Amino acid sequence: MTKKFNVAVVGASGMVGGELLGLLETRRFPVGEFYPFNSGRRPAKVSFRGKKYACAKPSLAALKKSDLAFFVSTDEVAEKFAPRLAAAGTWCIDDSSRFRLTPGVPLVIPEVNAGELKVSKKLIAGPNCTLTGAAVALAEIHRRFGITELRMATYQAVSGAGKAAMCRLEEEAKAHFKGVPLKPGPGQFPRPIAFNLFPQVGGFDEAGNSGEENKVEAELKKIWNDGKIRISCTAVRVPVLRGHSLAVWFTTKKNCTEAALRKELLCTPGLKFFAKPGNYPTPLEHAQRTDIVYAGRLRRAHTAGNEFQLWIVSDNLYKGAALNSVQIAEAIAGL
Amino acid sequence: MTKKFNVAVVGASGMVGGELLGLLETRRFPVGEFYPFNSGRRPAKVSFRGKKYACAKPSLAALKKSDLAFFVSTDEVAEKFAPRLAAAGTWCIDDSSRFRLTPGVPLVIPEVNAGELKVSKKLIAGPNCTLTGAAVALAEIHRRFGITELRMATYQAVSGAGKAAMCRLEEEAKAHFKGVPLKPGPGQFPRPIAFNLFPQVGGFDEAGNSGEENKVEAELKKIWNDGKIRISCTAVRVPVLRGHSLAVWFTTKKNCTEAALRKELLCTPGLKFFAKPGNYPTPLEHAQRTDIVYAGRLRRAHTAGNEFQLWIVSDNLYKGAALNSVQIAEAIAGL
Repeated sequence: MTKKFNVAVVGASGMVGGELLGLLETRRFPVGEFYPFNSGRRPAKVSFRGKKYACAKPSLAALKKSDLAFFVSTDEVAEKFAPRLAAAGTWCIDDSSRFRLTPGVPLVIPEVNAGELKVSKKLIAGPNCTLTGAAVALAEIHRRFGITELRMATYQAVSGAGKAAMCRLEEEAKAHFKGVPLKPGPGQFPRPIAFNLFPQVGGFDEAGNSGEENKVEAELKKIWNDGKIRISCTAVRVPVLRGHSLAVWFTTKKNCTEAALRKELLCTPGLKFFAKPGNYPTPLEHAQRTDIVYAGRLRRAHTAGNEFQLWIVSDNLYKGAALNSVQIAEAIAGL
Repeated sequence: MTKKFNVAVVGASGMVGGELLGLLETRRFPVGEFYPFNSGRRPAKVSFRGKKYACAKPSLAALKKSDLAFFVSTDEVAEKFAPRLAAAGTWCIDDSSRFRLTPGVPLVIPEVNAGELKVSKKLIAGPNCTLTGAAVALAEIHRRFGITELRMATYQAVSGAGKAAMCRLEEEAKAHFKGVPLKPGPGQFPRPIAFNLFPQVGGFDEAGNSGEENKVEAELKKIWNDGKIRISCTAVRVPVLRGHSLAVWFTTKKNCTEAALRKELLCTPGLKFFAKPGNYPTPLEHAQRTDIVYAGRLRRAHTAGNEFQLWIVSDNLYKGAALNSVQIAEAIAGL
């Protein structure tokens, strides 16, 4: 008989929370008792395995009843509870950015670095949704040929900014057809998003890099356990509802052929690689509630020796967030 | 008194043709007689300076009545008429891709290389709409510091594919709200475009590069008169109606500071540079019937020495096509 886990979900009524609950069901994660929490600002009910649950406001005492707690909430909520809860012996899988770069906290994508998971480290972070596609797709190539430089232009779906942002895109698009600009409202971005796009995800630092661009760089170095790789990113929000896409350039230390890379991509865990030239994934067609990362259009870049280009697409809510958290839980269950 | 030009427009009833006619009026280009042509497949009328004109099917005899002919049509139509018409003494400004790379045919963006215009070369090509933004924005930096490598991820509006493609995006978006996928129809792209995007603009060659990516590389080398610069591009179609955006990485031969580059960008002809950190252009806000190229988010890249990132936006129908053609005509008028 499989060991059952009493599971808490903090942020259960949010968008990633909803996806997480669905995945715990469909992937048959061995949930014993189930404790959903939300911010407590609004009453909310969630459905899980055919039963309705009222979300409670989180407290350390209530959370301690769980063996495993998913945090799909804010940095603040994670900070308030996760370290103390983990110290008390509950596995904490945090999808916020708060502890991703904290030394001693494993930052894990199971296909890439499940080896970082240890019984002695109960607080585990899942990475930013944008770099996940690249981290998975290029993991084997990095292992085998050594990636020294990585450039990445992103095409990020609005769902990365939450439910209200998805509604906002749709409302702005409807307003476009009515010919009337939409008034400011919930989920609004710094710029119009319907039939538009803008190179800002998060705030800017003094050097002019956005929060998202800095996360991609720092978190990828940690996940690949390689502080020497040089990474630069331009993060762009696009009018897509779900699915992040990446145009990447990578340079390998060892000489390699396109054929050798193709072979590596075809056996990379968690990746479906479109090897046929001219075949490629798109967010709407391939990244809607899908578990794996997709890539295509591998080709040699004309800019430098040993430099290649690749197109990567993944579901920012599944592999980029909820699914990755559940996969971490599954790996923990197998420890 | 200004010399007047009898002007032919081949493709007058198309989308770029419409923009061109408007620009000839508003910029007060000295048009004498006006001869609009279209494919002749459908009867079409166009308005110019308050008068309606029926478009004629083009013939060399009819075109010869003009001093200056704009070709905003297909490669085939340009091939059929432009060389013979130019040989007969009529200035031919061709916006198709047919002659862009032909030796002896100047490929011109007036702000960048007006010096290529010569009375002895009557057939002149305008470049692809995608690279125009980069060619203008980086021209002075290239002149001063020598760009050796250029990487470019594009975010291309559907209007680059014509009127029917713009309608298709809107119809697909409406169908999304109705919950019914749209049937195949005019303007359809290889993949769904509403709330989606895809890395394909044109067909693919054997190496896996798209037609657009190859154009960017070859045409930019010709415009900058620098065959040594190494360029790689990923061209992506996005659900934006008008305005192409570019995320670029460029490497300079000479050492330079961000401050020096900023200074150069602020006095680059035809460019508005957003020097304030965190300030940037977007297609919907800045590239709707605007004459100049916009750039922002200059910063040092973390990938290599002397490497920088820049965000560039321009109106693909104006500066990328119709406006550039009119500006070439204005430069010719001044020869």
